[in-house]
Amino acid sequence: MSRYMSSRFDHLEEYVPGEQPRDMQYVKLNTNESPFPPSKEVLKALSPEEASRLNLYPDPTAKGLKERLAKRYGFEAENIFVSNGSDDILNFAFMAFCDDSCGVTYPKISYGFYEVYAALYSLDAREVPLKEDFSIDISDYFNVGRTVVIANPNAPTGLLLSKEDIRKILDSNRDNVVLIDEAYIDFGGESCVELVHEYDNLLVVRTFSKSRCLAGARLGFAIAQKGLISDLEKIKFSTNPYNINRLSLLAGEAAIDSDSYYTERAKDIISAREYTVAELKKRNFTMTDSYANFIFAKHEDVSGNDLYLELKARGVLVRHFSKAEIADYNRITIGTKEQMTALINAVDDILEKKGCAK
Amino acid sequence: MSRYMSSRFDHLEEYVPGEQPRDMQYVKLNTNESPFPPSKEVLKALSPEEASRLNLYPDPTAKGLKERLAKRYGFEAENIFVSNGSDDILNFAFMAFCDDSCGVTYPKISYGFYEVYAALYSLDAREVPLKEDFSIDISDYFNVGRTVVIANPNAPTGLLLSKEDIRKILDSNRDNVVLIDEAYIDFGGESCVELVHEYDNLLVVRTFSKSRCLAGARLGFAIAQKGLISDLEKIKFSTNPYNINRLSLLAGEAAIDSDSYYTERAKDIISAREYTVAELKKRNFTMTDSYANFIFAKHEDVSGNDLYLELKARGVLVRHFSKAEIADYNRITIGTKEQMTALINAVDDILEKKGCAK
Repeated sequence: MSRYMSSRFDHLEEYVPGEQPRDMQYVKLNTNESPFPPSKEVLKALSPEEASRLNLYPDPTAKGLKERLAKRYGFEAENIFVSNGSDDILNFAFMAFCDDSCGVTYPKISYGFYEVYAALYSLDAREVPLKEDFSIDISDYFNVGRTVVIANPNAPTGLLLSKEDIRKILDSNRDNVVLIDEAYIDFGGESCVELVHEYDNLLVVRTFSKSRCLAGARLGFAIAQKGLISDLEKIKFSTNPYNINRLSLLAGEAAIDSDSYYTERAKDIISAREYTVAELKKRNFTMTDSYANFIFAKHEDVSGNDLYLELKARGVLVRHFSKAEIADYNRITIGTKEQMTALINAVDDILEKKGCAK
Repeated sequence: MSRYMSSRFDHLEEYVPGEQPRDMQYVKLNTNESPFPPSKEVLKALSPEEASRLNLYPDPTAKGLKERLAKRYGFEAENIFVSNGSDDILNFAFMAFCDDSCGVTYPKISYGFYEVYAALYSLDAREVPLKEDFSIDISDYFNVGRTVVIANPNAPTGLLLSKEDIRKILDSNRDNVVLIDEAYIDFGGESCVELVHEYDNLLVVRTFSKSRCLAGARLGFAIAQKGLISDLEKIKFSTNPYNINRLSLLAGEAAIDSDSYYTERAKDIISAREYTVAELKKRNFTMTDSYANFIFAKHEDVSGNDLYLELKARGVLVRHFSKAEIADYNRITIGTKEQMTALINAVDDILEKKGCAK
């Protein structure tokens, strides 16, 4: 930090994205990207004609994209917020719905950015430990008197709360926003988005980065009643109104128009996940019951960090977190069947070298 | 605002972007876009192959783009910050370098977003009136004990401060950041970027939206000594690390690689500006001496709002601001020679209908 930076950031620790090493080509299973390209409709939408219009600002209201999302999810355009990736929306939500008089609560083990936002805005943050099996005890979030933020499925565990669990949290927090981060909901979970019709305090955050294969386009959206949406719009228009570029808006529209492609790709991921889980179980791995495009796995004879390093040495990149509670585990993105076979082969080699029983 | 939004935003008025009406095709001279498409190198960089990799996250460090910008402007990569449009950088700078103990000062008539950021972060903002001729009195910014923000050329006046003027402001504010917003510097002004070598409190903010014909790609950059740059990186990595999409990074790199195209287009704009100024002078318009890709013009017999409406009725869109000090004026973006001829023809028709002497 320079001497010019506000002292309120003295203790701020920024988020650390998954590594992107350039020394060699890896089987990249560390940032929960989709292994599949966008649909051909998306590629067609990004035409040279559209690129030649990049001298013009994008539509800051994102009308076309909002209308498509509204129709797709059974809402009106005024129920939809779109922004430059779901991190952007999370940032706006922490800004809009938390302050000195309203803190925030979220699971202690979850998406690592929540604690960064809490620190960024100097919030009173209540971090709730998970149960021993890494599940969320929903009663920890009843009547908390602060903004509730829960990833569902949770990260990095992949564990899912039911829609009725979320309803209970909503019922007991009618005076506070409940933000459900559904970044990974399309891989077998049931979305709570229908509850938006009933609860004006529910904000559902989604992304095009995972199931819609557009991590590189930076596009997220949120669904809520129009009160919360207009609050987010106010923050967006007070920070960076043109925050989605023209081509990403077009890509998003085309992605919604080609929804069946993405449904099929999500099925591919689920199938590759089931294959990977079965193979790793045979090799004495313990895993949570993941509903996401990643699994969370540990081996009883190999430490989490050791496995991460050994896999990396074999050209397979997974994500290891050093937090004590989860240091035994690795988060492994589900890629194609071929990529997962490469992972399994690398695991076999590691276990053999270490003399572990297969 | 919903009842869930933080009360600190009760009085926040968001920024209002230039209108984008859809009722007809306008000669669009209201948002200071370039009338020219990106270079052919940029169009080539946005290939179908690259689009098919949009499933992967962009490089959050933007290494390739930073290296090119560093080389282009005579710095190291650690002196360069890139983000999702220059508004994004302004937002980060207000966040990083202002707080309860350090307010901000900027000209009362300037880019309208400065007052929005000041309100967003509840800052003590000293808005300094311009002189009667709309120029900035640099002595108003000496020893101010707060962050200084100045657009150079200023908007919507287009008036320019010299590098030596900026040096004087820097010399008298060694304990505060001086942010010079050079969004419009490439249309005839002299950049103060070289002063970065001497002053660790200077932050120069630039954009690809104007002279580099990429408003739709959302790309801004800043140049400063590494202290201020690392502060901005800390904010970026604490809000939205992947904030520039893959294609915009590629477009930015290709734009720097094809610099001469943009130098020629800036010359075209300057030439069209000179033509427009000469024609409007013949028609009894008063204008500031603009060094930007817009002019700031009033006619003694037609009110600012009236001219705006009459032009719009004739299919020419310009920007009118209702602030009392500048309500007589319109900000007119400089487009192609053909667009400016269309403007002049519309003006002639308006003046004739109103019975004004030509």
